[in-house]
Amino acid sequence: MSKLLQDVVGELTKLPGVGRRTALRLAIHILKMEPESVKDMTRSIDRFKSEVRHCAKCNNLSDEEICPICQDKERDHSTICVVEQIADVLSIENTRQYKGLYHVLGGVISPMQGIAPSDLKIDLLCDRIAQGGVKEVIVAISTSVEGETTLFYLMNRLRQFPGLKITSIARGIGFGDELEYVDELTITHALMNRRVIE
Amino acid sequence: MSKLLQDVVGELTKLPGVGRRTALRLAIHILKMEPESVKDMTRSIDRFKSEVRHCAKCNNLSDEEICPICQDKERDHSTICVVEQIADVLSIENTRQYKGLYHVLGGVISPMQGIAPSDLKIDLLCDRIAQGGVKEVIVAISTSVEGETTLFYLMNRLRQFPGLKITSIARGIGFGDELEYVDELTITHALMNRRVIE
Repeated sequence: MSKLLQDVVGELTKLPGVGRRTALRLAIHILKMEPESVKDMTRSIDRFKSEVRHCAKCNNLSDEEICPICQDKERDHSTICVVEQIADVLSIENTRQYKGLYHVLGGVISPMQGIAPSDLKIDLLCDRIAQGGVKEVIVAISTSVEGETTLFYLMNRLRQFPGLKITSIARGIGFGDELEYVDELTITHALMNRRVIE
Repeated sequence: MSKLLQDVVGELTKLPGVGRRTALRLAIHILKMEPESVKDMTRSIDRFKSEVRHCAKCNNLSDEEICPICQDKERDHSTICVVEQIADVLSIENTRQYKGLYHVLGGVISPMQGIAPSDLKIDLLCDRIAQGGVKEVIVAISTSVEGETTLFYLMNRLRQFPGLKITSIARGIGFGDELEYVDELTITHALMNRRVIE
């Protein structure tokens, strides 16, 4: 087997969800692509890796010191939505319904994986709130054991700000989900938090 | 959304089976990788794309003019196994049972996709055989309509070599396949080509 092919297959298996078979398929596809197109791809990966950074305010990915969302004067700077990771910001932005700012923790507290509160951007969040102007913090982190631990820790830290409204995104049955396949905990929560139909 | 992230996501969706969601997941994984590791990956892709070539004898991928398989004096140079594509060579090599040489056609005849016999390395195969020393050609191309057309065309071309043995790999029920889920054509062939148990 060609050494160059072996190398590229080995390197591509570093990516998540890419085994040897998939890597081989990707390599053979790369072989058929236009040389300029391959160059554009590798160049964009290199630039992304070396130039992208985290917004100094919200910790979201950014090309500059402060990300476009934090810089946007049209957005509601009195509301901050706290999420675990960068992908969550994109999911919420895709709804085009939220007009406030974000704060990316960079994970959840997990003793198992060695992630302590100090590894997350919680101090940065408190600094932002301490500067004033923030009225509401919406917590949008997952309902896993780690997520709940993080929520508990976060609540303790945020209580130091009197008058700050702290909310959590609604939990319930997703649109299109069939009750038959929804787990008991979600159904229990959805029943407890039922709403009057107006 | 960060322009650099947007770029890398757009570029990664050029790969087969990679949609926007997967591209985003890959980008976020790249973000967490060691910078040197990312550089190794993009460098190996660039080198593969610019330096790899096709063996002048068998059309398999090669780092040099002639691939290691064709150069190997230990292998049986009197037998050539004809396959559609590079991946097929790797599949057969993985069995470690075949000791002859290969010939990669580079596809199958397909009027629908505009692939004519002249687009395949059939002339190159005939040239190899014309040089003498080849006793058997094993045809290992797929049993699709295009594959059968290619086989038919190939047979006509190979008949010009008197004494050349032309064989086809056995068709039948795969190991581990359950009869219940095997298509009728395969079962029909497997029944017709049944063998006496010795």
